[in-house]
Amino acid sequence: MTVNGLPMVVPASDLPERVRIHEVGARDGLQNEQRVVPAEIKAEFIRRLADAGLTTIEATSFVHPKWVPQLADAEQLFPLISDLPGVELPVLVPNQRGLDRALALGADRVAVFASATESFAKANLNRTVDESLAVFAPVVRQAKDAGAHVRGYVSMCFGDPWEGAVPLHQVARVCTALRDMGCDELSLGDTIGVATPGHVLELLSLLNEERVPTNMIGVHFHDTYGQALANTYAALEHGVTTVDASAGGLGGCPYAKSATGNLATEDLVWMLHGLGIETGVDLGRLTATSVWMAAHLDRPSPSRTVRALSHKDQ
Amino acid sequence: MTVNGLPMVVPASDLPERVRIHEVGARDGLQNEQRVVPAEIKAEFIRRLADAGLTTIEATSFVHPKWVPQLADAEQLFPLISDLPGVELPVLVPNQRGLDRALALGADRVAVFASATESFAKANLNRTVDESLAVFAPVVRQAKDAGAHVRGYVSMCFGDPWEGAVPLHQVARVCTALRDMGCDELSLGDTIGVATPGHVLELLSLLNEERVPTNMIGVHFHDTYGQALANTYAALEHGVTTVDASAGGLGGCPYAKSATGNLATEDLVWMLHGLGIETGVDLGRLTATSVWMAAHLDRPSPSRTVRALSHKDQ
Repeated sequence: MTVNGLPMVVPASDLPERVRIHEVGARDGLQNEQRVVPAEIKAEFIRRLADAGLTTIEATSFVHPKWVPQLADAEQLFPLISDLPGVELPVLVPNQRGLDRALALGADRVAVFASATESFAKANLNRTVDESLAVFAPVVRQAKDAGAHVRGYVSMCFGDPWEGAVPLHQVARVCTALRDMGCDELSLGDTIGVATPGHVLELLSLLNEERVPTNMIGVHFHDTYGQALANTYAALEHGVTTVDASAGGLGGCPYAKSATGNLATEDLVWMLHGLGIETGVDLGRLTATSVWMAAHLDRPSPSRTVRALSHKDQ
Repeated sequence: MTVNGLPMVVPASDLPERVRIHEVGARDGLQNEQRVVPAEIKAEFIRRLADAGLTTIEATSFVHPKWVPQLADAEQLFPLISDLPGVELPVLVPNQRGLDRALALGADRVAVFASATESFAKANLNRTVDESLAVFAPVVRQAKDAGAHVRGYVSMCFGDPWEGAVPLHQVARVCTALRDMGCDELSLGDTIGVATPGHVLELLSLLNEERVPTNMIGVHFHDTYGQALANTYAALEHGVTTVDASAGGLGGCPYAKSATGNLATEDLVWMLHGLGIETGVDLGRLTATSVWMAAHLDRPSPSRTVRALSHKDQ
């Protein structure tokens, strides 16, 4: 698949020169797809993503298989890909047991998963926010002691399906707690996709005031209302250089079933490359990979860029 | 259809307080839909759009019926809606004959349709760029003499399916020509949806240098690669206050069939309202209108906001 001379490269002022894309398609994406993909196909997917130039590819989740059957094969999958050169392969660990399983397989980047709201903490983790933070604290400590890099996800940072708009200070409290327990990086999730750019900028500013530096913040936008890329652009203007995205727009949010979920990596790359921001990604190869995975899932990619580019080749 | 407490309203610095949405669904949208909609349904659509708070609703096109059968009923439609109070109803006029037909029906806002590229001028107008401008000059003059407001569309301002990236000076030349012949307003079209925010900002700056003031510029983005809203945000930062959009994302570009076409008005309104920017639009009513029209077209709306909000009500 080729991308011919477009988009035209025109930088804008004061944006980062390079963005690190944290690719979540293999984990967050496949976790939310109905069809369960065999481990060999997942491994091939991750190898193709690496071949397309992605260097941070979230690989799987060591949650209990009962909760996420789509990722029940983490033990089988991880050894198939852990030798990929030059690629970071973070994995999700919900608790001590998950961390033990991940470390036993040689994982050196893990992620914990917190919520900014009580309703989602209850629904997703069956704990209060503070109870979940108490569970994560020793997990993060042990991961750091084992030399692992730790990412802290914070979901529902902007809106919550039960609670509506989420107060900024509530998000900041969870972020600072994760920072204080030793997380190297945070990912601010707009799990239901409701945020708009002013809201994003205000949260980023508040976090800076609370001494959460921008260089430890990643943004994780969903495209439920079509806002993900505008929010990303605002975050870039603030200086954010880590952006989560999902190849082909894989996955969604189980709490907003009708809708598109993750920002598609291809749509993101189109914008970044147009802005002259380096990503290391080959958009043609990435799009071909998403088309290949869409065939395995038996549904078209929701990514607008994937649809436009794959049509062109026909 | 109700929109409950989201998006959270958080303004960003230095954005306009109010944006005028130039609604193109009834013209640009329906013109590019396969199914031909009866005039009575179009009239009802326009009335519902007005009831949702839109105040500039492009109604139809006085092109030759042979070229655009979807809008062949302009003479029948226009009298059905021309009495809507407080609503501007611009109509497209491709030439002298079209202008005569529009003025005879009492139209007081017309639009001419130029191209920034030779390839598209040839494909769409069967003329060179300069030949088409020569055709428009007396049309614009006569429209102005008749007291009408004139909008000049410029298509392919960022990329062209045959020519690739479009040189900025080429776009500026067409824009200044339209200004000089008396157009009150310009609409910069990203007809194939390839632009990214830096490109948008550079064109807007160049036009200002060429003494095309920002307050006579509207932006018209397509969502083919998912970039429309990010581009709109950048344009707002530049001071643009007129944004074209299509209710429910109706229509597309016949030269990029696979793909989404116009920016959906609902996705735009979600962002603008989140930013605290006034539009006068009731998002719930607008979404209900798009769902109603989607039923007439027998296909789901491609607007992410329409899909998310209409699912919520089920």
